[in-house]
Amino acid sequence: MNVIKSLKEMAKIAQEPSNSKNTIGFIPTMGALHNGHLALIRQARKENKRVIVSIFINPKQFTNESDLMKYPRTIEQDVELIQDFVDFIFIPSACEIYPQDFQLSISVGAHTHDLEGEFRPGHFEGMATVVLKLLNIIRPDRAYFGLKDYQQFIVVSQMVKDFNIDTKIIGVPTIREISGLAMSSRNTRLSDKEKEISTRIYGILQKAKSVILNGAQNPQDIEKFVASELVKLPKSKVEYVAVRSLQLAKMKVIESDMVILVAVYIGEVRLIDNIIVPSGIQGADH
Amino acid sequence: MNVIKSLKEMAKIAQEPSNSKNTIGFIPTMGALHNGHLALIRQARKENKRVIVSIFINPKQFTNESDLMKYPRTIEQDVELIQDFVDFIFIPSACEIYPQDFQLSISVGAHTHDLEGEFRPGHFEGMATVVLKLLNIIRPDRAYFGLKDYQQFIVVSQMVKDFNIDTKIIGVPTIREISGLAMSSRNTRLSDKEKEISTRIYGILQKAKSVILNGAQNPQDIEKFVASELVKLPKSKVEYVAVRSLQLAKMKVIESDMVILVAVYIGEVRLIDNIIVPSGIQGADH
Repeated sequence: MNVIKSLKEMAKIAQEPSNSKNTIGFIPTMGALHNGHLALIRQARKENKRVIVSIFINPKQFTNESDLMKYPRTIEQDVELIQDFVDFIFIPSACEIYPQDFQLSISVGAHTHDLEGEFRPGHFEGMATVVLKLLNIIRPDRAYFGLKDYQQFIVVSQMVKDFNIDTKIIGVPTIREISGLAMSSRNTRLSDKEKEISTRIYGILQKAKSVILNGAQNPQDIEKFVASELVKLPKSKVEYVAVRSLQLAKMKVIESDMVILVAVYIGEVRLIDNIIVPSGIQGADH
Repeated sequence: MNVIKSLKEMAKIAQEPSNSKNTIGFIPTMGALHNGHLALIRQARKENKRVIVSIFINPKQFTNESDLMKYPRTIEQDVELIQDFVDFIFIPSACEIYPQDFQLSISVGAHTHDLEGEFRPGHFEGMATVVLKLLNIIRPDRAYFGLKDYQQFIVVSQMVKDFNIDTKIIGVPTIREISGLAMSSRNTRLSDKEKEISTRIYGILQKAKSVILNGAQNPQDIEKFVASELVKLPKSKVEYVAVRSLQLAKMKVIESDMVILVAVYIGEVRLIDNIIVPSGIQGADH
């Protein structure tokens, strides 16, 4: 059985034998694994000698208790689903990750109050704290994050750069259902009707992309358009719509490749999605 | 010449060859090296195969600009003093340590507003941030800190534990001049007269220690006694006097080994010192 629970044991296994060819690819997850996670594992498999997946529902990154309580817990199915594809599954306990006298946390600069940070205060601090701990325990060569959580990918990339951590952070494109709905552990909480509604979010993002590719210049106009389409969805409540540079800087006019990010409730379930749009401007990376 | 300036080069040198016998002892400093630093180097020499000293005046841990400006800068003498005793001296540039888009910092829980944290807001966040970066670059087996900066030693120990960093933090007893004055880079800013006054600080701490060893029970009484002695010193301004557990917890009665910590200005120069006192209580570590 390749499930590891103790921090010490995980560190020991991950760090020896530390010959340079024995590369480690690491995928931190909160469980409720789906095809999106399998895509991360697949890419890690290609690029590393060993693959380690962690499953830890990190209480520090939930803004409210009820979201934490409702977060799906499917450890047995998770292990069943991935155990043949990975070398180790790391399932630490909350009391070992956060002992009683735990004191430290990380501030993440501008992201603390922006986008997800605005609507989920403390989320990125908690996420960054646990990711830093996991990176220190496992010391992977590469760590894989889904681009569905785009801002998370940016925050982790910035953290690794700012703290001089010797791990390459790799963003893996969002995996979608045939309907276009971005895979998410939270999708299991949608009713059939809500799920059908949710599939239209990506369609709206694609429409916005084509508006930009057809020459729209003003990010605010795009944001208004996307918001107005989202509010038309039954049972929806829009939290934010933002057109940003790939580094999540605000733009007055479209002047670089960009990402359109949305957060919207469908019924009781909060969904996020995004789409990357090339600017077509010379020098931009497309 | 064993001086390294580039982060990349330092990381490369420190991390290879990483066979388990090639242990690294690391001493982070802000330069203006004195016998206290040499004691750290001596101990690191005994316990490790290789010794690396960093010299970096960390702007983020200074609370006010003028203290940063006045901090002694003696890089050439520093290199001269230690180069034959260490394997590498790491002197990174501020712009490589803190590039323009640097965003992250560390919160240090209770210490943020306690003792040094109260009088030097931001100090421990800045200190912890740079120490974390240096530990990530060098990945030492052991890192050495002087116990003169007792709270710093506690904060770094907590950080390494909380973030699962694989480095042992070692506190080295304060080195004093024959007069009793704790060695400090700031001592060079004292006039002869002020230096003579400053030597009496340790005498007061020793007197308090003997009062405790003679059976005093009340930490507040000890604090009052020490403060009253310190204010009698010419040109003195007392910032804090605290009797705490070795983990820096407040105590209502003396019930464990303890440390008496003081911060006092003599003229324009801020000095800190401390003394560890065994409680004599059974089970305590003395």
